[in-house]
Amino acid sequence: MIIVGELINASRKPIAEAIRNEDVSYIQQVAKDEHAAGANYIDVNAGVFVGKEADYLKWLVTLVQEAVDGPCCIDSPDPKAIEAALEVHKGPAMLNSISLEKERYEAFIPMVGGTAHKVVALCMSDEGMPETAEARVKIADELINRLVKKGLSLDQIYVDPLVQPLSTSDIYGLEFLKAIEMIMHDYPGIHTMCGLSNISFGLPVRKFLNRTFGIMAIDRGLDGMIMNPLDKEFMASIIAAETLRGRDEYCTNYLRAYRNKLFE
Amino acid sequence: MIIVGELINASRKPIAEAIRNEDVSYIQQVAKDEHAAGANYIDVNAGVFVGKEADYLKWLVTLVQEAVDGPCCIDSPDPKAIEAALEVHKGPAMLNSISLEKERYEAFIPMVGGTAHKVVALCMSDEGMPETAEARVKIADELINRLVKKGLSLDQIYVDPLVQPLSTSDIYGLEFLKAIEMIMHDYPGIHTMCGLSNISFGLPVRKFLNRTFGIMAIDRGLDGMIMNPLDKEFMASIIAAETLRGRDEYCTNYLRAYRNKLFE
Repeated sequence: MIIVGELINASRKPIAEAIRNEDVSYIQQVAKDEHAAGANYIDVNAGVFVGKEADYLKWLVTLVQEAVDGPCCIDSPDPKAIEAALEVHKGPAMLNSISLEKERYEAFIPMVGGTAHKVVALCMSDEGMPETAEARVKIADELINRLVKKGLSLDQIYVDPLVQPLSTSDIYGLEFLKAIEMIMHDYPGIHTMCGLSNISFGLPVRKFLNRTFGIMAIDRGLDGMIMNPLDKEFMASIIAAETLRGRDEYCTNYLRAYRNKLFE
Repeated sequence: MIIVGELINASRKPIAEAIRNEDVSYIQQVAKDEHAAGANYIDVNAGVFVGKEADYLKWLVTLVQEAVDGPCCIDSPDPKAIEAALEVHKGPAMLNSISLEKERYEAFIPMVGGTAHKVVALCMSDEGMPETAEARVKIADELINRLVKKGLSLDQIYVDPLVQPLSTSDIYGLEFLKAIEMIMHDYPGIHTMCGLSNISFGLPVRKFLNRTFGIMAIDRGLDGMIMNPLDKEFMASIIAAETLRGRDEYCTNYLRAYRNKLFE
């Protein structure tokens, strides 16, 4: 499971404050904590700072990579902001995200063709958000084909089938799960990746619902997640689900997590 | 989801004691509690009392049905013990379980042909326990075909694909999950049913692992479970998983469970 630590996101109050106050040590501590808890990528998102997003992203990338020996997931719907952050990022990053929306796609694609970056491919097009599994897979097919033509390997592509709130439609959970299964089946070697919290929008006990949905998504083959790696119960759920699904030889990771007191 | 309340099982110390002491009120209170918590069937199991199992099962069935307006799941590998208990059971029961083991099968089948009882069909044969999904489905196919020929509808059949410990083999979780999916796909209208706790045998934090596995099994289509309905967190997981899987119109059950403080 590829874990993208989600905490350095300016939509979270303490992060927005730390950015405003140029609180280097706070941001770097969050990055270190996420890394120590098992994050493979540290997400950086400064989307709430309109007009300053690109500058802040560059600053965050530099800080994070000073603190942590690992890559960032550069998170913005604006290709220009991602491009700016890439100027300072060391090594291959994860770029979050390209989609089939024409403008976004065309601005994004020159940044990744022929590179070693990982790319989150969001199942969204100018026709809007897909509702069914089939509609998600149709967008995914098109995005994957185009990315492969630009020289990316399947291993560089993380399809995000787009989680929509269950409170809007009973079928959104199941259609998402089906899409994960279809994509992982159709493209061996590809990855799927998403944030799960949209599923519980408008419902009570959101963390519980998100965690339960994460277990089900792992069951369908999801192998990447944007989440809070400091949430011990969520991390424990992910490890247990992977073990139960036969992805943990001799239950090694599960037993290590137990010894490391993740289940307490 | 069909819930079979598992608590009245003589392998549990307080129940064995209550049986020995003929503690009617304790047993009836457990039955009432399970029923109130949502159990559709009350499991009765007296397997540890060799030589007295049939008598104790009859006694338990009578007590439970005095206390609760609902059916029992009569739980024994011994068809004769089940037959005895059926003499006193009111209405259709769930019989747990028939298997493809020749002796057990032949003694069991006359009890169910042409009846309205529900039958748990355990994927076990004289060749031993199946390891792969395919081996489980092969036994299930044979059992289902024979039961249907005896006049049972698919709705009366609860296939138990047999959970085996993950500590014995990494693949046992996944093979079980695949079997659930294949059976539910191949026989629309049939049910699947199992106890989950074997999965965690020999591993730490068993309840957590069982619960996580339950969520994954529901994701594959499992619609019956033998479990402790007084375990609020497990019940909450089941309800959340069903909601996420699109089996809960307008999230009605989830919201009701929330109002009933199941998530606290």
